[in-house]
Amino acid sequence: MNKLTIVKVGGKIVEEESTLRALLTDFAKIEGRKILVHGGGRSATKIAAQLGIESQMVNGRRITDAETLKVVTMVYAGLVNKNLVASLQALGLNALGLTGADMDIIRSEKRPVKEVDYGFVGDVKQVNALLLADLIEKEVVPVLAPLTHDGAGNMLNTNADTIAGETAKALSACFDVTLVYCFEKKGVLRDENDDDSVISDITPDIYKEYVAQGVIQGGMIPKLDNAFEALRTGVKAVVITQASELSAKESGTRVTL
Amino acid sequence: MNKLTIVKVGGKIVEEESTLRALLTDFAKIEGRKILVHGGGRSATKIAAQLGIESQMVNGRRITDAETLKVVTMVYAGLVNKNLVASLQALGLNALGLTGADMDIIRSEKRPVKEVDYGFVGDVKQVNALLLADLIEKEVVPVLAPLTHDGAGNMLNTNADTIAGETAKALSACFDVTLVYCFEKKGVLRDENDDDSVISDITPDIYKEYVAQGVIQGGMIPKLDNAFEALRTGVKAVVITQASELSAKESGTRVTL
Repeated sequence: MNKLTIVKVGGKIVEEESTLRALLTDFAKIEGRKILVHGGGRSATKIAAQLGIESQMVNGRRITDAETLKVVTMVYAGLVNKNLVASLQALGLNALGLTGADMDIIRSEKRPVKEVDYGFVGDVKQVNALLLADLIEKEVVPVLAPLTHDGAGNMLNTNADTIAGETAKALSACFDVTLVYCFEKKGVLRDENDDDSVISDITPDIYKEYVAQGVIQGGMIPKLDNAFEALRTGVKAVVITQASELSAKESGTRVTL
Repeated sequence: MNKLTIVKVGGKIVEEESTLRALLTDFAKIEGRKILVHGGGRSATKIAAQLGIESQMVNGRRITDAETLKVVTMVYAGLVNKNLVASLQALGLNALGLTGADMDIIRSEKRPVKEVDYGFVGDVKQVNALLLADLIEKEVVPVLAPLTHDGAGNMLNTNADTIAGETAKALSACFDVTLVYCFEKKGVLRDENDDDSVISDITPDIYKEYVAQGVIQGGMIPKLDNAFEALRTGVKAVVITQASELSAKESGTRVTL
């Protein structure tokens, strides 16, 4: 099987001109087939504020009412996605911007209302990887915005980490997939105050130990849980690293089973 | 060669819920391979106003400064395009939303400044129809937003009529293309006050005569000039009609050589 690298970058990196340039150059250097999955929350919050719409977050997730859905659809699928596509095209990559609605690649269902009503937020139900795999084989580089659809005509706001993970799992049937989560730190840190204390390898046993010791905590726990689930579902490798380390072969934290 | 119908709809139709529903149902009924090309100017003007950006039009064209480019990128490629895609998916069509930057399908150059500086407006230079034709053969229905790119990293605002015409010409190499321009009237009218005075067929000779008589004038002249040019470049038929007449076989004005 051919190798495929799926890179997920958070909003912060794609929304600041200096870090964005560096990211795109590094992403372009990755050899072979690849996909970019992006966020865009900061721009969405900014545009929403300009439109007089208050951004409400619960557990780091955006409450997406009808007006907010319009904003994230504009910002993620329009502003952020198309600027990434145009920039990657300028670097010689045949980028194609997509949401889950396009070619029905990611179908989701509106999150049921429990303690929190997240509004128009979608939990991924199904990834249709066939046409996507076809395009990747033709050297197209998909750029995925964090939006899906419900198949009934509605766009839904969907977490970019989830989009990356689910796409990686589905494409594992056609490719040897490496999933890379880019974030602000060089990797998972042993000591959060020491940027050089990167844990180079994490297995389920090491993970359990670090969680018990309180070394790994907070937002890193769902990230690693997702990583292990992806590995159990066929993804070959998961790497957590800094965007600037993208083209370095042996950097960041490598998650394995 | 297989038949392909390219339908261009103006902003007005896709931006009002009632006319949009009817259009989508009629578009879904068109047999065989098809493409939808849409505008979105009214929404862009509305969102721009909400963001405190004044919309400036010259000869019916939007002056696109840097801030306006952000707005049209959000509105055309995000809000309008993705809602069309999600709605068509709900009707069972495998829609794929695209700008000219995606897969480099339409490359343009920034319009040179003459009497008017239109800003970030692109004149189409090249259509890359190969990957597009491939997807159409796989029953994907492209939905094109009126945006292109310059290949150097910039999105450019581009007239939807032009996008439709240029795409039709390029795809004529692979398909028997019928290009349909939907607008508010039932077709080109002999008497603009009589909605039933549709001219059913226009050839270059009839066109010259009607222009000389003042029957055909204003915005219809560039539309028809484009239609004749498309026909001379391989497009099989051009039809000017009302959106509600889309699925009727013999309606509107048929332009032929």
